[in-house]
Amino acid sequence: MTEHFRLTASEAQAKFKDGSLTVEEYADSLLSRIESRDATVHAWAYLDPELVLQRARELDQIPPEQRGRLHGVAIGVKDVIYTKDMPTEYNSPIYDNDTTRVDAGSIRVLRANGALIFGKTSTTEFAATSVGPSHKGPKTANPHDPTRTPGGSSAGSGAAVGDFQVPVALGTQTIGSTIRPGSFNGIYAMKPTWNSITREGQKIHSLILDTLGLYARSVDDMKLLLDVFQLVNDEPEEDFHVHGAKFALLSFPTPEWPAAGPGTTAALKQSAELLRSHGAEVEEIVLGDEFRQMYKYHLQVLAVDGRVAFLPDYIVAKDKLHSSLVDYVENTDKYTRKEQLKAFDELAAMRPKLDSLADKYAAIIAPSVVDEAPVGHGNTGSPAFCGPWTAMHMPVLNLLGFKGENGLPIGLSAVSSRYRDQHLLRVCQEVGKIFESEGGWKREL
Amino acid sequence: MTEHFRLTASEAQAKFKDGSLTVEEYADSLLSRIESRDATVHAWAYLDPELVLQRARELDQIPPEQRGRLHGVAIGVKDVIYTKDMPTEYNSPIYDNDTTRVDAGSIRVLRANGALIFGKTSTTEFAATSVGPSHKGPKTANPHDPTRTPGGSSAGSGAAVGDFQVPVALGTQTIGSTIRPGSFNGIYAMKPTWNSITREGQKIHSLILDTLGLYARSVDDMKLLLDVFQLVNDEPEEDFHVHGAKFALLSFPTPEWPAAGPGTTAALKQSAELLRSHGAEVEEIVLGDEFRQMYKYHLQVLAVDGRVAFLPDYIVAKDKLHSSLVDYVENTDKYTRKEQLKAFDELAAMRPKLDSLADKYAAIIAPSVVDEAPVGHGNTGSPAFCGPWTAMHMPVLNLLGFKGENGLPIGLSAVSSRYRDQHLLRVCQEVGKIFESEGGWKREL
Repeated sequence: MTEHFRLTASEAQAKFKDGSLTVEEYADSLLSRIESRDATVHAWAYLDPELVLQRARELDQIPPEQRGRLHGVAIGVKDVIYTKDMPTEYNSPIYDNDTTRVDAGSIRVLRANGALIFGKTSTTEFAATSVGPSHKGPKTANPHDPTRTPGGSSAGSGAAVGDFQVPVALGTQTIGSTIRPGSFNGIYAMKPTWNSITREGQKIHSLILDTLGLYARSVDDMKLLLDVFQLVNDEPEEDFHVHGAKFALLSFPTPEWPAAGPGTTAALKQSAELLRSHGAEVEEIVLGDEFRQMYKYHLQVLAVDGRVAFLPDYIVAKDKLHSSLVDYVENTDKYTRKEQLKAFDELAAMRPKLDSLADKYAAIIAPSVVDEAPVGHGNTGSPAFCGPWTAMHMPVLNLLGFKGENGLPIGLSAVSSRYRDQHLLRVCQEVGKIFESEGGWKREL
Repeated sequence: MTEHFRLTASEAQAKFKDGSLTVEEYADSLLSRIESRDATVHAWAYLDPELVLQRARELDQIPPEQRGRLHGVAIGVKDVIYTKDMPTEYNSPIYDNDTTRVDAGSIRVLRANGALIFGKTSTTEFAATSVGPSHKGPKTANPHDPTRTPGGSSAGSGAAVGDFQVPVALGTQTIGSTIRPGSFNGIYAMKPTWNSITREGQKIHSLILDTLGLYARSVDDMKLLLDVFQLVNDEPEEDFHVHGAKFALLSFPTPEWPAAGPGTTAALKQSAELLRSHGAEVEEIVLGDEFRQMYKYHLQVLAVDGRVAFLPDYIVAKDKLHSSLVDYVENTDKYTRKEQLKAFDELAAMRPKLDSLADKYAAIIAPSVVDEAPVGHGNTGSPAFCGPWTAMHMPVLNLLGFKGENGLPIGLSAVSSRYRDQHLLRVCQEVGKIFESEGGWKREL
């Protein structure tokens, strides 16, 4: 039997187009994959195979000339995003079996373009804790080594795409919730420019930080999604070549910037060598002291925004809320309004400065994670390397291809200035080919 | 028959407490008021008297010691905020009869505190156009002169509170959608500091501008609401006296800052005289040229954020979307990403500067509107005077007491720096007494 589940979304679409595959057959293959793997990976918070097959059959009925750009593309949806036909539970006992009758804005766009909304993927509580899912049932595991975490908070989306259970999925990111699972699961992960995709119907933690995230196993699939969300740059589509391009290998002077482990250190070194061997220039830069407080400010904004975002659940059911969220609401860190505003305003002032820096390069290359996915399913790993780009609203894409000391994937982040998302994709299309073919890690699943 | 509907929320609560009034009797009085006035005012997008009475009876059953801080407080909810037991239609044909199964974050807080969620109030389309409601049925009228607009976009909430149909209501503000109807309907209206109250489940137009707004007929009622939403200042509760306090009468140098009409001009002059006659100092200041582009930037942010916010509805049903929203999505103004980022970053840089200025005064006094509510129900009036405080995230409260050439109410805005909401309320408690008793306008309904 052909393993249709291994296809990328673009590859599956080519088969729908030439008539060699129906959406129903494709959905059936994905469901079989899930059935054989779910007892190990536990990526799904909600999945109704009958509903999936019914929708797939409906899509097959649409005449070819009326099909949307995402016709038949199976999408996993992080369970903090409203879907009108499935519950949205946030991995919180407060919302067990809670179904809205509305789709989130992002889901409306995807569905209207013919996507097959497949199911809801596991998340940490409200996508706002770093403790592995889930409050009910077993915790999500890394498909490449089930003794390890798939990362968080977009645990299920990252694991499902990494494990060939769906070709693409939605995550969210407030510090590093999309990029970290991207690295741990060996897939492309993108956090677009802040507020470039609607967050209507997506759980709010921080208005100024939350971003919808995207997962795929190819840059082409990522582009398919960005195009549907109409992310347009100022620049026209460009012809990019690694040869002659200039990259920055960037470090932050923040005290919380962790020491990279051996896997990430080696991947950074190797990435520079590979880029140089393909004719690119790679400059190693450390940001100035003016950015020293960035992560401190980021965590302050998270805490004070959490004070507002989780007040309703605190009032309704404090005893069912994770202690870190209770701490936000009770302002356990005793942040004053003056401190809160300083953090908010200082981050705002840094954004145009980082843009100017990024504009000097084809992309900034930086670590995605400290190292390979840690062993265990409790702690989802450190998001500290991902924080800067979230706070700065810059688009970032997790590139794959490297491996750590245990053979597990190590990703690197490619970053550009705000609203150069399509440019960044174009760069990553070329860089991704090099890293995937010469980086040393191969997906073995 | 006692006209219970005339009570403020605090007054009604005193009667619930001493046992002289039940919530059901109170709700019944409000419903009678609505029945006698609705054919004129048309404030409600959805109202189910049976549901209201049933909830009122449930509240009456709660033993006194278990009652919430908002026990029995009847609240009108602008129809862009989710309520689990009533439709949310946004005054858009795309959402006719659309009921979610969830409450917005703000509604969860209010309901958990014992509020009586009364019904949904009319709005302009998605709270994002300046055209009077509604797409179905007659348009909402100003209770003080039904030939005039109640303002927008929070038309129904402003009119309902102004007309004694409910004591308090929720609005929203992205430019001047809460403060403008406050002025036109002769009521207190507050736009708190941006993101100080959760916007979960409230329609998004602009993440960086949208704010939940509050309506009441007394400053005490406003404080009741702020306290429930746990808006806490750095400063402890203060003992404020107008005598010896310093106020700023402020104008902006922006080209779009409209010429105030005779009503607002007279109100500003009279407010300064009243404050001075009560022993306050009033300084007239015009902001420097560095703030000249503020409103231009504000409108740019609105347009580009609308491009993201309304894309889903555009894709699903472009033909049912107001042309101004279609223009946002199609970027008819051809804003580049560079322009968009400049507008966003420049507004961010202005915020701490305005805070520093505001901190020198007990409050800034500024116009709320150009003049009395305009005649007609199509155009909801200019929001231009309200824009700065929305863009700057500063708390602003519409004070009442003055009247225009046709005897209609004219409000003035009192403003303080970010997160000094409780301070501003305290100031307005004292200033409000003076303006209400000596300003010359009395509510005659």
